[in-house]
Amino acid sequence: MTAAEPDSGLLGPGWAGSPAAAATGDRAFLRALLDAEAALTRAQAALGLAPAAAATAVTEAASDAGFDVHDLALRARAGGNPVIPLVADLTRAVGPEHGPYVHRGATSQDIMDTATMLVAVRTLGPVLDDLARTERALAALAAAHRDTAMPGRTLTQHAVPTTFGLKAAGWRSLVLDARDRLTAVRDALPAQLGGAAGTLAAFSAYGAADPLALTAAYARELGLREPLLPWHTLRAPIADLAGALAFTAGALGKTAVDVLTLTRTEIGEVTEDGGGGSSAMPHKANPVRSTLIAAAARRAPQLAATLYGALVAEDERPAGTWHAEWEPLRELLRLVGGAARDAAELAEGLRVHPDVMREHLDLTHGLIVSERLSAELAGVLGRPRAKELLTDLARRTHAESRPLAELLSEEPELKGVDLTVATDPTRYTGAAGALTDRCLERR
Amino acid sequence: MTAAEPDSGLLGPGWAGSPAAAATGDRAFLRALLDAEAALTRAQAALGLAPAAAATAVTEAASDAGFDVHDLALRARAGGNPVIPLVADLTRAVGPEHGPYVHRGATSQDIMDTATMLVAVRTLGPVLDDLARTERALAALAAAHRDTAMPGRTLTQHAVPTTFGLKAAGWRSLVLDARDRLTAVRDALPAQLGGAAGTLAAFSAYGAADPLALTAAYARELGLREPLLPWHTLRAPIADLAGALAFTAGALGKTAVDVLTLTRTEIGEVTEDGGGGSSAMPHKANPVRSTLIAAAARRAPQLAATLYGALVAEDERPAGTWHAEWEPLRELLRLVGGAARDAAELAEGLRVHPDVMREHLDLTHGLIVSERLSAELAGVLGRPRAKELLTDLARRTHAESRPLAELLSEEPELKGVDLTVATDPTRYTGAAGALTDRCLERR
Amino acid sequence: MTAAEPDSGLLGPGWAGSPAAAATGDRAFLRALLDAEAALTRAQAALGLAPAAAATAVTEAASDAGFDVHDLALRARAGGNPVIPLVADLTRAVGPEHGPYVHRGATSQDIMDTATMLVAVRTLGPVLDDLARTERALAALAAAHRDTAMPGRTLTQHAVPTTFGLKAAGWRSLVLDARDRLTAVRDALPAQLGGAAGTLAAFSAYGAADPLALTAAYARELGLREPLLPWHTLRAPIADLAGALAFTAGALGKTAVDVLTLTRTEIGEVTEDGGGGSSAMPHKANPVRSTLIAAAARRAPQLAATLYGALVAEDERPAGTWHAEWEPLRELLRLVGGAARDAAELAEGLRVHPDVMREHLDLTHGLIVSERLSAELAGVLGRPRAKELLTDLARRTHAESRPLAELLSEEPELKGVDLTVATDPTRYTGAAGALTDRCLERR
Amino acid sequence: MTAAEPDSGLLGPGWAGSPAAAATGDRAFLRALLDAEAALTRAQAALGLAPAAAATAVTEAASDAGFDVHDLALRARAGGNPVIPLVADLTRAVGPEHGPYVHRGATSQDIMDTATMLVAVRTLGPVLDDLARTERALAALAAAHRDTAMPGRTLTQHAVPTTFGLKAAGWRSLVLDARDRLTAVRDALPAQLGGAAGTLAAFSAYGAADPLALTAAYARELGLREPLLPWHTLRAPIADLAGALAFTAGALGKTAVDVLTLTRTEIGEVTEDGGGGSSAMPHKANPVRSTLIAAAARRAPQLAATLYGALVAEDERPAGTWHAEWEPLRELLRLVGGAARDAAELAEGLRVHPDVMREHLDLTHGLIVSERLSAELAGVLGRPRAKELLTDLARRTHAESRPLAELLSEEPELKGVDLTVATDPTRYTGAAGALTDRCLERR
Repeated sequence: MTAAEPDSGLLGPGWAGSPAAAATGDRAFLRALLDAEAALTRAQAALGLAPAAAATAVTEAASDAGFDVHDLALRARAGGNPVIPLVADLTRAVGPEHGPYVHRGATSQDIMDTATMLVAVRTLGPVLDDLARTERALAALAAAHRDTAMPGRTLTQHAVPTTFGLKAAGWRSLVLDARDRLTAVRDALPAQLGGAAGTLAAFSAYGAADPLALTAAYARELGLREPLLPWHTLRAPIADLAGALAFTAGALGKTAVDVLTLTRTEIGEVTEDGGGGSSAMPHKANPVRSTLIAAAARRAPQLAATLYGALVAEDERPAGTWHAEWEPLRELLRLVGGAARDAAELAEGLRVHPDVMREHLDLTHGLIVSERLSAELAGVLGRPRAKELLTDLARRTHAESRPLAELLSEEPELKGVDLTVATDPTRYTGAAGALTDRCLERR
Repeated sequence: MTAAEPDSGLLGPGWAGSPAAAATGDRAFLRALLDAEAALTRAQAALGLAPAAAATAVTEAASDAGFDVHDLALRARAGGNPVIPLVADLTRAVGPEHGPYVHRGATSQDIMDTATMLVAVRTLGPVLDDLARTERALAALAAAHRDTAMPGRTLTQHAVPTTFGLKAAGWRSLVLDARDRLTAVRDALPAQLGGAAGTLAAFSAYGAADPLALTAAYARELGLREPLLPWHTLRAPIADLAGALAFTAGALGKTAVDVLTLTRTEIGEVTEDGGGGSSAMPHKANPVRSTLIAAAARRAPQLAATLYGALVAEDERPAGTWHAEWEPLRELLRLVGGAARDAAELAEGLRVHPDVMREHLDLTHGLIVSERLSAELAGVLGRPRAKELLTDLARRTHAESRPLAELLSEEPELKGVDLTVATDPTRYTGAAGALTDRCLERR
Repeated sequence: MTAAEPDSGLLGPGWAGSPAAAATGDRAFLRALLDAEAALTRAQAALGLAPAAAATAVTEAASDAGFDVHDLALRARAGGNPVIPLVADLTRAVGPEHGPYVHRGATSQDIMDTATMLVAVRTLGPVLDDLARTERALAALAAAHRDTAMPGRTLTQHAVPTTFGLKAAGWRSLVLDARDRLTAVRDALPAQLGGAAGTLAAFSAYGAADPLALTAAYARELGLREPLLPWHTLRAPIADLAGALAFTAGALGKTAVDVLTLTRTEIGEVTEDGGGGSSAMPHKANPVRSTLIAAAARRAPQLAATLYGALVAEDERPAGTWHAEWEPLRELLRLVGGAARDAAELAEGLRVHPDVMREHLDLTHGLIVSERLSAELAGVLGRPRAKELLTDLARRTHAESRPLAELLSEEPELKGVDLTVATDPTRYTGAAGALTDRCLERR
Repeated sequence: MTAAEPDSGLLGPGWAGSPAAAATGDRAFLRALLDAEAALTRAQAALGLAPAAAATAVTEAASDAGFDVHDLALRARAGGNPVIPLVADLTRAVGPEHGPYVHRGATSQDIMDTATMLVAVRTLGPVLDDLARTERALAALAAAHRDTAMPGRTLTQHAVPTTFGLKAAGWRSLVLDARDRLTAVRDALPAQLGGAAGTLAAFSAYGAADPLALTAAYARELGLREPLLPWHTLRAPIADLAGALAFTAGALGKTAVDVLTLTRTEIGEVTEDGGGGSSAMPHKANPVRSTLIAAAARRAPQLAATLYGALVAEDERPAGTWHAEWEPLRELLRLVGGAARDAAELAEGLRVHPDVMREHLDLTHGLIVSERLSAELAGVLGRPRAKELLTDLARRTHAESRPLAELLSEEPELKGVDLTVATDPTRYTGAAGALTDRCLERR
């Protein structure tokens, strides 16, 4: 067994090969760390605190792909973070003349936190693209099946009819909610600059008349927001990312768990396109995408919990709380990125079977509309008698396996009462259509 | 041991007796359930779907405090939620004439979810008041100690100086962040109305021409937002509450953990007013409020995780996921409410000891300003020699227990160089003052 | 809204009214706190460190039910735990003569931790009883349905047949695992005695020649284990409880989630006895017990996470970590206790429908045995041709909605091959019977 | 950005380069998957179900290191797990003659679960070695400092004296607890074999007269335990691993958090050997190992929560719950492995400063022994007067900054009373020595 065995995604079929995987790997983090260092020197140059040539030299050295990620990982151990060895390597690469301008006045956390924000922004781009694909596909499904009646299920049992359009509209609604939360968080992600303890003092020592202007220039270089305060121990950006990402995982998980139910062999109301096969069992078409999304949704809340816990960051740099953020945040970004990719494919490829849905509306022999009949018969027979009659007939539909409509038609009390509409489950979908329409207006 | 042993807060000193405790107890939930039922009948009356007298009768019956909470709890077991027995009791209380208008067309979840929103709104009022008290007290501390220098600590060690003003400004910043997140979530909390499976169909069956108008009227009666869709399985409001509450717990936890450190016997830079005593050890003044806030902050993330997990709500009512929300959400509201009360008292009563902070700046024999000296001496001696000299002197300050400034003054190379400012830790606080000022402008 | 609104279980239908509810309520905790105080004085008397009359006086005063739980809860806030006010009240109740022997030499944590252990032991008794009922009922189901074939389902799809006996045997196996873990943990729960910082020094100051003997006597009085060390910051007992309880919740959750699936309207292979009803929908019989167990299983892991986190208890008493244990541990005990009660009722009342299971074995037109046919036809036709033929016929069974057995019988290549057994799903249950038998031998 | 950017540990300084990193990487998992496949064919050969040559051929092909991990990761997506493409590659590598004996009768989960157990066993070996190093070093510290008095701290404040020996003995006690739990779990880890739905039916179809014997042979080949039942949805082994690993992380975290406190600049009672440096601040020696252990301890409970949640595994293979296990379990193994390595180095290199501890015992001007004085003076002056006097003197020690012993010596009431011993904090360590001795006897 060799020492170096990097993870290539073998245990993560939900995210392997996704844009989020590429955007969150160790090399992507290294890229972001180097980008942060280069931006810092450029910002200093812009304010006259470093020669323009130093900015160029650092930027060029930092653009090189030759840094050894695994070696940095091993050397990170001595000081507890990878910035320390990286600064050494980058300084050497820049050379003796401009080397002193590398990382000047900064602390490891400035670079690490800023790089994390860059990685988050870069990952959320493709994630939001995949959410957009997902919501478009779901909008199309909702519109197409606005009036496709199906059983509404509560606590696993048929309750009253609903429509597949309303269900898809609901899924889309959560996807839009996730999009809104992710977008708001992404647009607020700040650069980090504070120096050793968040006072920016070293930048002053190196000549900055207004260190706050340096933070502003640094943020501009990076396309990140300028923070009101250095946030080394004010971890709102991390917590906000955690919340929005856990929300997104759960939002997509809702669709996944519904699809998993509806694709069950006994239900079969929808089919995942291109389900995963099984060599020994040729008939199986597993709902793989829903499965992987559901798996991500099971993990995300606990990862977010660790990150919310990181708000409790003592002193000017906490011993452990900060270090406990890095991997869980990467995992969350990755899982959500993979889930968004799978959700887009799932939504775009979902096959819907209205005929099966229609058949299932009769599985309770018509009792699925008993709520409506309670209301309507109360008007005809009075509430007590209506209730008594329905309870009796409900028992008989089961015992005799006969449709409720048929039994009702034989009741002398109801002679002449036309129950055609009232017993038709496809006509008891309430405001499902109107709700779907209203929901689809949301952009 | 009797069957009924309600929890009075014996295990929750962090929240017992707080406004949040009163607003989240079983009786407060019962009140909210009854308010939701009454609002529904009134909304139906407003739309002509029920007699005005029924609305009055239900409202009156619901205003009674005579319902037996514990009996309802026991009867809740049969159907899995307390609304079923409550509707039975309320219907009986309303009497035969108007009883049929109780809960008409609704499902248990409509009432349960709506009541939860009411409880959340009612709890967040006092929570936000306490956050306002907290931020005002912290603002006063930050202003008063804008220039009070103290050691900045990273990974438990003195790093460079900072100010207590900047620290307090940072605490306040997180409190304002929490306030903003809680306020946004609170203002968006929606009423819930969907009927058995979210289609509002029963309301139509009972005569509503436009069931969406009923939802609007119901929300108006309750002072809650009208939802775009019934959200019985679209749990964004729950997840958003979870996120904002976990954020708040963590935000307050940051202050608490800093106070816990700064009050240590060996540090003593701040003191909690009226610390908890110990009978056997009269000298002890325990930082009880910080302790209880820290305890809340340890629990909140995992409670939020359970609630984020509840987004994965299958079908039109999930079997278990929904039921798993109730107690964790109540706990979160309660813990955060208690923590906010404690934070207000903590911030208002915190005593700061600038003299102790000043003394501690000398604990490293002046090495706390070595970062600055590195920068300044490099200008005088050149970078390599500056580094060499400082490393040597750092060793000697420890070995000889002599101040760095003294050793520097003896160096022949530095004859004539005035290092008075450079070796004064109170003058190496960088932009702490400017950052504090900027932060205090935020309202 | 009054200040005091104790929780009576309104939000906890899963545990309200259960033995665990009675054993974990605030009054049960108060009882345990008083029992711990009385045991301490008795232990001191047994060692000659207190007059026998004092032991009697404290025991008598502690046996009184007149202490005001809610008042104690409110006063707990000042010092951060309820023992401080309780000692004051108990000392007053004992009176001036023997009052000084109350709590002598002890610290609040000694009493709080010991009481927690007592509550745990007292709760686990009925929990283990309910697990025993559950396993017996499941054993009976497994034996009765040893050969009841049903579809095995993987990733929501029919895979190959299994038996209900094996399924029930698996459920029971987890229940036995939970029993073993809970029993082992319960039998090791230790008393806590350490004094202010875990050195037992105050007991020496009050005359104890061998304070370790006092710990032993105290543990004997309580029926708890004598600890090797005071465990005030060595929280193994709490973590072990957390693990065993989370295990139990998950073990019961496995049964619950299977029952929830099998009771779906479309599946209906089992029925929960006395399912919860719905007023508006008389046909609904909700699987309420499974629902409530599933809800408990969703919450337990996060509660356990908080308790595992409490292992990281700094110093000789941590500021917050300890306080964060109390409510989550109570919740876990309560949830598991409620779930065990529901599991016993669920298992004892579960109705199984072998005929429905049999019907479902044909839902894939016989493809559920394609794995076996692959193996058997390979022997007849060679592996490549067997695979080709089966793939073709699998396609046709779907397209033509004809049983695979029928299509096979028409194949000229298979003339004379008797496939009766090979195509009978009830005869493709492998070692299910043998595994069930072996499992039932476990006691 | 390329698609393939494997993680080399850049974000995991706590585990990068550790034996656990090597034992849990993707290549180690691939090795275990191949080992499981080869063992299955060998077990079948041993029972006469496959030719001996096939067993040799599969074993040889599986021993090759030429499989492409990242390609397998990408192809895993189609079916949701990496075993499907691996079986294809391995079958091809074995060649047409013996290829059919690869994976014969098995399901992906058989191989995946078995490989996970192998990885766990292989990781726990070095973890237990590091725990053994840790406990030996802690035992030496406890013995060496059996009588080194230091302040006991509760809720951040000095309470009464304790000894460093007792503290180290407590740390060791938790390490031994962790060792016991990990060892018990490791020794019980079972092989997994069940076939498509856990009935072992396919093995019968391929000729096994007694499929249970095949499981036994397979487990023997692997050095794993033979399971009573296939545990595809009875996830006790996963939950048990989760619990023992979370326990271990917390146990080590206790030491880490204590060291972090004791190394604070103001406290300095212990020093981590070779603390991590800071380029800009030469005086800093950060407690890096404690920091990284503390970070692991913050993450472990939530990872364990996800794994406990995986007990709720529906059907014969759950859609998502199973897939959600893989990465969290690997993370837990890795984090604990890294933390054990760091704990061994921490314990072996910890420097203790008894002189600083001694100085700190005087920080409260002698009030640290007020508990003892309460007891002793009560004997001289009576309880009420003793309390009154001590309260008064406690106030004065603070106000006048004079030692309590001095003030006591001036009290006329105490003329002739020798308080030398009673006021010496180093002589108020109670049973600390005896407890340390008893604890060190545990092996």
